[in-house]
Amino acid sequence: MHHMNSEMEECIRLCLSCHHVCYETAMNHCLETGGKHLEPQHFRLMMNCAEICQTCANFMLSGSDLHHLTCGVCAEVCRRCADDCERIGDMDECVETCRNCAESCAEMADSLPKGRVVEATR
Amino acid sequence: MHHMNSEMEECIRLCLSCHHVCYETAMNHCLETGGKHLEPQHFRLMMNCAEICQTCANFMLSGSDLHHLTCGVCAEVCRRCADDCERIGDMDECVETCRNCAESCAEMADSLPKGRVVEATR
Amino acid sequence: MHHMNSEMEECIRLCLSCHHVCYETAMNHCLETGGKHLEPQHFRLMMNCAEICQTCANFMLSGSDLHHLTCGVCAEVCRRCADDCERIGDMDECVETCRNCAESCAEMADSLPKGRVVEATR
Amino acid sequence: MHHMNSEMEECIRLCLSCHHVCYETAMNHCLETGGKHLEPQHFRLMMNCAEICQTCANFMLSGSDLHHLTCGVCAEVCRRCADDCERIGDMDECVETCRNCAESCAEMADSLPKGRVVEATR
Repeated sequence: MHHMNSEMEECIRLCLSCHHVCYETAMNHCLETGGKHLEPQHFRLMMNCAEICQTCANFMLSGSDLHHLTCGVCAEVCRRCADDCERIGDMDECVETCRNCAESCAEMADSLPKGRVVEATR
Repeated sequence: MHHMNSEMEECIRLCLSCHHVCYETAMNHCLETGGKHLEPQHFRLMMNCAEICQTCANFMLSGSDLHHLTCGVCAEVCRRCADDCERIGDMDECVETCRNCAESCAEMADSLPKGRVVEATR
Repeated sequence: MHHMNSEMEECIRLCLSCHHVCYETAMNHCLETGGKHLEPQHFRLMMNCAEICQTCANFMLSGSDLHHLTCGVCAEVCRRCADDCERIGDMDECVETCRNCAESCAEMADSLPKGRVVEATR
Repeated sequence: MHHMNSEMEECIRLCLSCHHVCYETAMNHCLETGGKHLEPQHFRLMMNCAEICQTCANFMLSGSDLHHLTCGVCAEVCRRCADDCERIGDMDECVETCRNCAESCAEMADSLPKGRVVEATR
């Protein structure tokens, strides 16, 4: 059976949680509140963040040895989304979820998974 | 702020869980075990199940008043996936997760969300 | 090698095109124009339409024998999206693309693909 | 109305095409041919390639000023997928489509879109 280390499991959990919170907040709170919440640049960032989190989780779930690439992008997009949600205000859950996901993804991006690399270079 | 009833929250949770388990199992356990686990019809069903669960969760997360449509399809695909995983064997977690998701989605498909319907027909 | 009938190829093309037009129009034209284009109900419908078109295309691309289920939902969501874009106005390309996709998906939903059914019941 | 430069339009077209070819080939040709086509590392790469192409296209379609990040990852994944399809053989269309997408994405990753950057730093 498939074995995944606990750091990666935690990173998947945080990506799925970040997708959940960003997508739901954008499509409900932002869309219904309007004003600054619907600045095109902000709304796009939230949708982009939701999408890259979903894709990043799928890379890890697939057992891919390229997940460090998607984790690197995901960390950067989540950081920016957290900053922008903080600037606009009224979205504390988003800020916190994005920061946690960014931190975990940044760690995954820096540490090449040893076992997978061996498998990849066979 | 956005309010979601607890039945829908539970259905979203089950869809995300079913996506997680089906995608991870197909891309790791099935792919590495081979044999019956890689019968094209079975593998496609698991990937289809993972995808419709993701889309069904996104419909509900978006506040859509059309989620009963995706929930109806999701219930049917999950039922078939559970049956096929049972037939092949060695995938108890998949069987159980798919059955739970199918049951919850079937209930969502049958019960039109009252508040949303009013909003939709304004 | 894989053979797909030309009706299905056309339906895939129309689904991908509808995803493209709805997603791009919502995230640019609607978001930047505001007003009626950002009514939550309308914007959600466009995003839902983009997503189910993507998933419906993926079901067909995967060789799934369950694509008639996603095609049925896709036809209904595209019909509603076309009507709503017509009501709001200023989105002729969306209206036409959604209507074409709805028509093709409705036909796919009604006609079970003979070859695939045989394969499915083996 | 939304204006997109023709380089980006071409890159979107190539990403969507690469998603289409990789996903369809993996889920039909590879799954039915078996053998080397179902080596876990190869099959995962094709599914990862299909997914990042879809996400990369969505970033560009959304008008995101962060598409250079997804384009960078997409270029790398497509390059590896092209190489691996060439190694396995019998997938000329995949090799060519992946190479074209990789080249276009690499160019997008290197050239920050001027108009969008101004908008992003306002």
